Amino acid sequence: MRVVVTGAAGMVGRKLTKRLMEDGSVAGRTIAALDLHDVTPFEAMSSPAMHVTVHVGDLAAEGAAAALVAPRPDLVFHLAGVVSGEAEANLELGYRVNLDGTRALFDAIRHAGNAPRVVFTSSIAVYGGPYPDVIPDDFHTVPLTSYGTQKLMSEALLNDYSRRGFFDGIGLRFPTICVRPGKPNKAASGFFSNIIREPLVGLPAVLPVPRDVVHTHASPRSAVGFLIHAAGLDGGQVGPRRNITLPGVGVSVGEQIEALRRVAGQDAVDLIREEPDEAVWALVKNWPTRFEARRAGELGFKAETSFDEIIRAHIEDELSD
Amino acid sequence: MRVVVTGAAGMVGRKLTKRLMEDGSVAGRTIAALDLHDVTPFEAMSSPAMHVTVHVGDLAAEGAAAALVAPRPDLVFHLAGVVSGEAEANLELGYRVNLDGTRALFDAIRHAGNAPRVVFTSSIAVYGGPYPDVIPDDFHTVPLTSYGTQKLMSEALLNDYSRRGFFDGIGLRFPTICVRPGKPNKAASGFFSNIIREPLVGLPAVLPVPRDVVHTHASPRSAVGFLIHAAGLDGGQVGPRRNITLPGVGVSVGEQIEALRRVAGQDAVDLIREEPDEAVWALVKNWPTRFEARRAGELGFKAETSFDEIIRAHIEDELSD
Repeated sequence: MRVVVTGAAGMVGRKLTKRLMEDGSVAGRTIAALDLHDVTPFEAMSSPAMHVTVHVGDLAAEGAAAALVAPRPDLVFHLAGVVSGEAEANLELGYRVNLDGTRALFDAIRHAGNAPRVVFTSSIAVYGGPYPDVIPDDFHTVPLTSYGTQKLMSEALLNDYSRRGFFDGIGLRFPTICVRPGKPNKAASGFFSNIIREPLVGLPAVLPVPRDVVHTHASPRSAVGFLIHAAGLDGGQVGPRRNITLPGVGVSVGEQIEALRRVAGQDAVDLIREEPDEAVWALVKNWPTRFEARRAGELGFKAETSFDEIIRAHIEDELSD
Repeated sequence: MRVVVTGAAGMVGRKLTKRLMEDGSVAGRTIAALDLHDVTPFEAMSSPAMHVTVHVGDLAAEGAAAALVAPRPDLVFHLAGVVSGEAEANLELGYRVNLDGTRALFDAIRHAGNAPRVVFTSSIAVYGGPYPDVIPDDFHTVPLTSYGTQKLMSEALLNDYSRRGFFDGIGLRFPTICVRPGKPNKAASGFFSNIIREPLVGLPAVLPVPRDVVHTHASPRSAVGFLIHAAGLDGGQVGPRRNITLPGVGVSVGEQIEALRRVAGQDAVDLIREEPDEAVWALVKNWPTRFEARRAGELGFKAETSFDEIIRAHIEDELSD
């Protein structure tokens, strides 16, 4: 089969690419060709088993999406997007990349006419507070950021185009991905990872919000697992509601820190400095806390079940040779 | 103040225009200028008290929306759109008019920079089944039509642009407007009006769905009332959730027919012929039934309280000299 990955140079995109190359197959079928797309020039890993092509460009630009899907891929992972902080800081960029780019891709797939599986990374940012203690699958989506708005609009389009048979779409509302490896990006959620990743390698980290903030997390490893699992779902079983809130570990920041203490000891915890930041708090206080994620469970999506597991996944995947 | 009405040649647009001219003011301020826009050429009523300008064109066309709002209106009623049946039959037209046209208008207002009140007609089509008996304000929005999808995407944009201060938007989720005067349009909901309007003037009408179908209605008079009321709301009081599900009369088709019997007698009822239509039923069975509309009530929106009232409003407004 032929597989497309957009946002292939991003953190999750790279991990997904690696997994696809290692597995050699997805959704029960051998991968013959892999088209990797990103707006940023990047060097792809190579694989002896499949034909790998790198595409660089702006998906919203005239003709770019059409060229990418002209070979009529069987499976499209659409991960490309600018993150929440950037979409908030740069209105036009956010709408162009997160909405227009997605719409251009979806329309190009519609015109290609082969109705592939499309797996789209949405976000729990489609929700806005106030929230109940545990957010049910049918809770309304009233985003409080431009990023969440763009994801919601894209979700709606995915649902409509799937209903009309242009493709077989699955939208995945990712929880916050934690522990993010590497350097912080502009996502306001960065501190959730920083306070774990940095102390694990002996570096200090700043906690800008109160310890009783509760939020839901899944590891990068789970993120890739979600994508792979979505690729193989039976669309008929998913039904007409194509956007799925994923499971994760709902914990307070205090519980994250306790998990760090259990896994890495008090010395690691001592590297966390509390330094309240009103700008971060203004965003974070509107974020969702815990999800029921009942449908995702029924459809077989799995995440970690404790924050200790999330930390151990990071150590295994990023800090081991 | 300066007021813009898009979709001014439509049924609600014409009634709103008439009301604005009769009242001479809206939201407590005198109307000095009224800009009426539609894609279809139309002849506007004139008013001695205000400067009325007719604009004809496609809002999604380059520069059209910018020209319309260049005089920096204080209040914009955005009613323009293609109806549900047409948006379903013609995918590209629906997205162009209902999404791109709305986005072009919202962006033009953003660039004009004076942050007016924007009143946007959304629809209960943003909801999709299965439904609870009474749909609460925080029920999720998963439309099952392209029309509903386009309205939902526009609502999301309105909410984000209001949050960012580009304008002070109010989205109104209209129930089905009944009794629609004039000829049927392509809306699949047309029969709800036909079975009342036609028998009232001695003409036969077809009922294509079962009598136990429950749906929510408000009169054209109430529709105009909703728009006028929204124009005068305090945005701070509305808060961050700018899209409001409106009240209406939730009745079964059987109850509609009983109301017709009470108001116009058995002879009128005898003109209704039951003729099941699978295509209409396929759409209608997914439509919402009754709404709690609690927020709308708190914000002072009012509709009829019985279907008898809705029929009497039609007789007074359309069938009296």
